[in-house]
Amino acid sequence: MPHTNRRVFLRQYREGLPLLEDFGIEDVEITSVPEGHALVRVDTLSMDAWIRTTLTPGSFHETADLGSTIRALGVGQVVESASDALVVGDWVFGPLSAQTHALMPAAALTKLDLSNSLQPRDFVGPLGLTTGLTAWVGLIAVAEVKAGDVVLVSGAAGAVGSMVVQLAKAHGARVIGIAGGPEKGRFVTEKLGADYAIDYKAGHVDAELRAAAPGGIDVFFDNVGGELLDIALDNLAPANARIAICGAISQYSDLGNVRGPRLYLRLAERNAMMKGFVVTHYAARFGEAKAEIAALMRDGKVNLPEHVVEGIDHFAEALLMLFAGGHTGNLLVQP
Amino acid sequence: MPHTNRRVFLRQYREGLPLLEDFGIEDVEITSVPEGHALVRVDTLSMDAWIRTTLTPGSFHETADLGSTIRALGVGQVVESASDALVVGDWVFGPLSAQTHALMPAAALTKLDLSNSLQPRDFVGPLGLTTGLTAWVGLIAVAEVKAGDVVLVSGAAGAVGSMVVQLAKAHGARVIGIAGGPEKGRFVTEKLGADYAIDYKAGHVDAELRAAAPGGIDVFFDNVGGELLDIALDNLAPANARIAICGAISQYSDLGNVRGPRLYLRLAERNAMMKGFVVTHYAARFGEAKAEIAALMRDGKVNLPEHVVEGIDHFAEALLMLFAGGHTGNLLVQP
Repeated sequence: MPHTNRRVFLRQYREGLPLLEDFGIEDVEITSVPEGHALVRVDTLSMDAWIRTTLTPGSFHETADLGSTIRALGVGQVVESASDALVVGDWVFGPLSAQTHALMPAAALTKLDLSNSLQPRDFVGPLGLTTGLTAWVGLIAVAEVKAGDVVLVSGAAGAVGSMVVQLAKAHGARVIGIAGGPEKGRFVTEKLGADYAIDYKAGHVDAELRAAAPGGIDVFFDNVGGELLDIALDNLAPANARIAICGAISQYSDLGNVRGPRLYLRLAERNAMMKGFVVTHYAARFGEAKAEIAALMRDGKVNLPEHVVEGIDHFAEALLMLFAGGHTGNLLVQP
Repeated sequence: MPHTNRRVFLRQYREGLPLLEDFGIEDVEITSVPEGHALVRVDTLSMDAWIRTTLTPGSFHETADLGSTIRALGVGQVVESASDALVVGDWVFGPLSAQTHALMPAAALTKLDLSNSLQPRDFVGPLGLTTGLTAWVGLIAVAEVKAGDVVLVSGAAGAVGSMVVQLAKAHGARVIGIAGGPEKGRFVTEKLGADYAIDYKAGHVDAELRAAAPGGIDVFFDNVGGELLDIALDNLAPANARIAICGAISQYSDLGNVRGPRLYLRLAERNAMMKGFVVTHYAARFGEAKAEIAALMRDGKVNLPEHVVEGIDHFAEALLMLFAGGHTGNLLVQP
């Protein structure tokens, strides 16, 4: 002690996509660690779409106060501890936020189990709450994927989508991924192993999907919303399809004016289900999920490519990249 | 033989609500009953919202051909039979259509079990496929209602809604019904036993619902769609609510331009499910459903008030009444 914490904070609210000027950066000194707290050197932050929804009042996650550090989940290492639960050197996961050092109640942190050759960064990757566990819960607990299903995934080149593609293949499904541009399409088929990729930017999603899945889709894992959700609804299998609503990244910049699925009556026509999920509601199954994903990692069946942005000063750029679609795989920031 | 059949047929397609002039009436002679067929005197027809969706090309049920008899489900009595499966005098249920006499393959007809004091008309009422069974399937098999749930029902004064209200009460739920106008509201609370009725025509559905269900709703049984669906989504309980999409009578006049639920992301925010259903997909549970409903009828806990229109010549008026909301309870036509 003391430690200098460099943090990214919210300077102003904006309707629509945030701009770089909406974020500020400053250094603050941390001079003491209160009882029950730990000071964590932030190692890696997970760039998640939900972060965007905290930046505008009235959106569905809690809104960040002006001046507050931008929220983010991440992993880090304890550098000071005033808690019996943690010692210096422990690796932890938690809501560390966009900063180099996080001073937090120990109770908000989860100590990582790094047995079986797992690396800290796996816990914001294949085993991350907002990445691998979200994919597992949506695909397996919510959509109940089974062998032989035709699975459609939007945002297939993103972190969650990449995991969904690989988990669905591991469960014996036929997998169609939607992503933007031919390069991401190749990533989805060649790197992730999807059977087919649809480039939504080419503008023929409906026709391509009808050709690729003439019998309809059994599972749609939706990260994007908007028009893609309507196209998926129109291509549901004749009965018992399941749509897992994970997110709607196409709609987060204007949550007051979301495009609802105009074809939602397909659910009634085709005896289909659309279910949203909050990943933490399925915490009772995280052990099962982690064990399955870790085993698939060891077998080489799950591998989540990373796109790492270095330096906390580039946090805001990385966040905007998430929405511009300028990355493939798991977008991470290393402060 | 011969018998004169008076039938209502489709004269022309129309965008939007049909008009009386879109229907024709004519008498045709039936001079013989082919092998395997039966001639049925149509006793009572069920006026169902799905009929409307057959009258416009491109809507989700099969479209009726011009000149064809308007489809409808009903009960009737066999007056001639050329099938071993049926004898004169048998009561049957089936797609009898808008006419006084239906000449049909015996295989398309289901012989009624009139034991336990059941009446033929019960099979287009509390035990009808599109009325009681639809209510049971949506509420019990799809939404899995349980004691203590807060259940919201739209179209609560209609045939399906009336059954949902009573079944939900029988299952120990607290029930809020939405209907149009104070008279229907009294019907929903006083005749059907709902705990609370909201008059959507008064224009304060959201505020009334918030006051009546401050903890949110656990089940929404939707017959109406449109704005009411968004209001329900906004008032879902914090977790694990279930929406059963039975229909969307507010949208059937312009199925090319359905209002999708803009607040569908509440499903993701609140870990909630929206499931459509095709009642016939649950045929394996009809025995259970009929036994339960029949028992509730005997105990006086289910009673479906009827609004009977007499004369096949008034079939089209009755159909339009269904959409204008000019009835309460089960709208039936007796040819």
